[in-house]
Amino acid sequence: MIDLYGMSSPNVVKIILMLEEIGTPYRFHPIEVWRKEQFGEAFRALNPNSKVPVIVDQDGPGGEPYTVFESGAILTYLAEKTGQLLPAAGRARYDVLQWLTLQLTGLGPMFGQYVHFTRFEPNASDYARSRYTTEAVRLIDVLNERLTHVPYLGGDAYSIADVATYPWIARLEALKLPVDGRDALLRWRDTVANRPAATRTALRTIEIQQAGDASRAAATADDLDRMFGRGRYAHQAS
Amino acid sequence: MIDLYGMSSPNVVKIILMLEEIGTPYRFHPIEVWRKEQFGEAFRALNPNSKVPVIVDQDGPGGEPYTVFESGAILTYLAEKTGQLLPAAGRARYDVLQWLTLQLTGLGPMFGQYVHFTRFEPNASDYARSRYTTEAVRLIDVLNERLTHVPYLGGDAYSIADVATYPWIARLEALKLPVDGRDALLRWRDTVANRPAATRTALRTIEIQQAGDASRAAATADDLDRMFGRGRYAHQAS
Repeated sequence: MIDLYGMSSPNVVKIILMLEEIGTPYRFHPIEVWRKEQFGEAFRALNPNSKVPVIVDQDGPGGEPYTVFESGAILTYLAEKTGQLLPAAGRARYDVLQWLTLQLTGLGPMFGQYVHFTRFEPNASDYARSRYTTEAVRLIDVLNERLTHVPYLGGDAYSIADVATYPWIARLEALKLPVDGRDALLRWRDTVANRPAATRTALRTIEIQQAGDASRAAATADDLDRMFGRGRYAHQAS
Repeated sequence: MIDLYGMSSPNVVKIILMLEEIGTPYRFHPIEVWRKEQFGEAFRALNPNSKVPVIVDQDGPGGEPYTVFESGAILTYLAEKTGQLLPAAGRARYDVLQWLTLQLTGLGPMFGQYVHFTRFEPNASDYARSRYTTEAVRLIDVLNERLTHVPYLGGDAYSIADVATYPWIARLEALKLPVDGRDALLRWRDTVANRPAATRTALRTIEIQQAGDASRAAATADDLDRMFGRGRYAHQAS
């Protein structure tokens, strides 16, 4: 049994999609990120970095409970534990790890900044909006180009690279990012969306989102400042 | 023999430090990132995402040359190939992978944005400067807290989590980020800095930096716009 702590963000949806794909039973525990629960002592004991998702595998290494944070580490842990969605060796393994890592370091953080400066803080900085829009579009085009050559991001087989990337790409239109002419990316997205695990994940995510919306409605201004990382330190440089 | 393509950025320094640690022979190939070489066809054949570092292992899987991009994937590839700096299984393996991934998704991208908005574009946005300063300081404190409990980021042993994190932490003062009171982090930094591989890496990095400075001096305004990701797409959202 896996205990999954999170909310409805793409990084959490990755893990739901993975758990649905590999068929491992799990329990979902909502974290009230809009109300600073991730900065509290109980959550920081799970992840000192105060971010969701986190899992606790009740049947971890040596049969003991084991806690894993960072979505990329969780995907790798679950893949290696179950022998699914990540080849054990050879070129196919590292092709998957390269495209997984590009999601973790590029698509994830940069789409995150794009959302911050377009949806949550649209008046903060024209410069930042343009910067992150440029980078988000560039990354979309890198993925589309990759998928003109291979059916899945890692190559011939569906893998944790696809699991990690899909939740952001599923939302392109909602994020007002371009899809026109990105035919290979859209074809790949349809293929992933049609997997039964993706359907189950979408239904689960809607439930979680609705519960999160209720929590968010109760957040204070201070809660939201902290959640959004609006910045509390004066710039240190001269 | 490993061919390493890069410049003097922290993501490349990670790989130099790793290669020096594991004792694998390598050749360094400078990429003129200030002059858009990473966007050219030759480099995109190595990494379609136009980022350094990239390695080509002339003795890759099956004895054939193999290309790896993304510093986190390169570190994992080299660790698994040589059996060094990443345990093969168990809690110790995933403790390392969690802290490695936190560097890849948090420290790296957020320090990168901090540098952009404080050093390269200090007048672009007060809001963005404050946001990324806040996040950089928060991450420094997360690392310091971790290192009050364990000697290395992954736990008891030096690992690729330390290799990935050290190049940014080595520069804290130069980046005008706070170190006072972060005693555990500074103790860890000294320990890593005193490794012979770190000394060799520092000398190598200075050579590479000097060559890079000469290349940068020849860059045009358009080159720099593209290198800095200043943004060329109008914001798409309404």
